[in-house]
Amino acid sequence: MSAGRANFEKRLRQIGAERYHDKHPFHQLLHSGGCTPDQVRAWVINRFYYQARIPMKDAAFMSRVDDPALRRAWRSRIEDHDGTDEDEGGIARWLRLADAVGLDRQYVASARGVLPATRFAVDAYVRFVRDEPLLEAVAASLTELFAPRIHAARIEGLLAHYDFADDSSLSYFRNRLNEAPKDVAFGLSWVLDRADTDEKQDAAAAALEFKTDVLWAQLDALHGAYVVPARIPPGAWIPGTHLVSGTA
Amino acid sequence: MSAGRANFEKRLRQIGAERYHDKHPFHQLLHSGGCTPDQVRAWVINRFYYQARIPMKDAAFMSRVDDPALRRAWRSRIEDHDGTDEDEGGIARWLRLADAVGLDRQYVASARGVLPATRFAVDAYVRFVRDEPLLEAVAASLTELFAPRIHAARIEGLLAHYDFADDSSLSYFRNRLNEAPKDVAFGLSWVLDRADTDEKQDAAAAALEFKTDVLWAQLDALHGAYVVPARIPPGAWIPGTHLVSGTA
Repeated sequence: MSAGRANFEKRLRQIGAERYHDKHPFHQLLHSGGCTPDQVRAWVINRFYYQARIPMKDAAFMSRVDDPALRRAWRSRIEDHDGTDEDEGGIARWLRLADAVGLDRQYVASARGVLPATRFAVDAYVRFVRDEPLLEAVAASLTELFAPRIHAARIEGLLAHYDFADDSSLSYFRNRLNEAPKDVAFGLSWVLDRADTDEKQDAAAAALEFKTDVLWAQLDALHGAYVVPARIPPGAWIPGTHLVSGTA
Repeated sequence: MSAGRANFEKRLRQIGAERYHDKHPFHQLLHSGGCTPDQVRAWVINRFYYQARIPMKDAAFMSRVDDPALRRAWRSRIEDHDGTDEDEGGIARWLRLADAVGLDRQYVASARGVLPATRFAVDAYVRFVRDEPLLEAVAASLTELFAPRIHAARIEGLLAHYDFADDSSLSYFRNRLNEAPKDVAFGLSWVLDRADTDEKQDAAAAALEFKTDVLWAQLDALHGAYVVPARIPPGAWIPGTHLVSGTA
C-alpha cells in the first residue's frame, strides 16, 4: 500500500522546492555578484571538499551493491568525477576554478583549510551512504533533480558578475548540466520502483531531506565564517592567504 | 628502518610459496582430472561467490581512497569483473563456465547454494578491505602475484581432463592471465614503496597471509562438503540438483 508513483515523485520534488540550497542567502549573494573575491574563494575551497568526497561516496555505495548491472550503471558517476583517459574529470575541472580565482591549487586539493562544519556535513553524507539501506542511499542522491537549475543559474550569474568566470573556469558546471540529468533519471526511477509502501516512501523522503540538510549546512558554514560579521574557526582558510603570486 | 625492498618482496613471495591455495588437495584433485562432475559444479558455485564479491571489495577500497589518481588506477579492477560496453566482464565469463558444467546459471548467480564457510571467508575479506589500513588492504590483494601460475595450470589441467572445458567456458581464466599481472605490478610497487618500516612490513605480510587463509578456507570448505566422506551442511547445494535439463 502506498501513495501512487506520481504522487510520490511530486512529494520528492516538493522537498527540493522547499529545502534545496538555492534558497540559501549565500547562494543568492554568490550568484547576484555580491560576493567579494575572498568569499568566492572560501566557497571554492569548501565546495571542493564536497566534490572530492563524492566518488568515495559512490564507491561506498557500489561496495554494498551485489547486482553487477546496478554497479555498472553507477560506475559512470565515479568516472565523471575522477576522470578517464579522455576526460580530465570533475575534480580536475574544479581545480581549474581554483586557479581562476587565484588560489594555490595544491592548498585547495589538500583540503586543509576546509571549515570543520563542511567536513562534518560531507562526512555524514558518505557515512549515510555506506551504512543506510540502499533505497535511502539512492534517494539521498536525488538532490541532483534540482541541480541543473542551480548550475544553469550559477553559470549565468558568475559570468555576469565576476572577471574570473569563463568557459574554462566554469567547465565543471557545464559538464554537470550533461552528467546530472542522466544520473538522476536512473536514480529517480530506481527509487520510484522500489518505494512501494508508505514506510519506504517515508524513508526515501527523509533521506532526501537529510541530503538537503547536508548541502544547506555547507552554505550555512560559509555564511557564518566569511560573511560579515565573519567568525572564522581555528584552522580554516584566512582570506588573502594561499593565493598564487600576482593575485590581488 | 626496514629490511630492504628486495628482501621484503622476497618475503612476500615466500608467503605464496608456502601458503597459496595451489597447494590445497582440492586444487590438485581438480586440476588432475580427479573431480567428479558434481565436485566441479560445487567448485563453480562456491568460487562464483568469491568472484562476485571482488568488485564490492574493490569499491570498498576506493571508498576509502582520497587520492583521485589512486582511485583511477584501481577502477579497472571493477571494470574487469563487472564488464564494460565492449567487454562482458569476469562475472559473466564465470557464468559461462556454470553453463558449461550444466548448472542453472540463475541458481549460481543467486549464490543460494554457497557453503556458509565460503561466505564467511569471502565476507571477512570484504570487511578487511573496508576496515583495515590501506597498506594492508592493498597487500591482501597481492595473492594476484601467484594467480597467473594457478590460472595457467588450471586451463591446462581442465582442458586435458574435462569435456566441458573449451575456450568459451575457460575464458574467465584466459582473461585473468592478462588482467592480473597489470593489477599486481601496480599493487606490489605500491606496497613496496609504502612499507618503509619493519612494523609496516610485518603488517603487510600479515595481511597477505590473511588473504591466503581466505582462499585456503574456501577449498577446505569444498573438500569437507563434497569430497568423500562428504559432509554437506544444511542449505548448501546438493549434487545433482539445479542442473539444466539434459545434463547428466
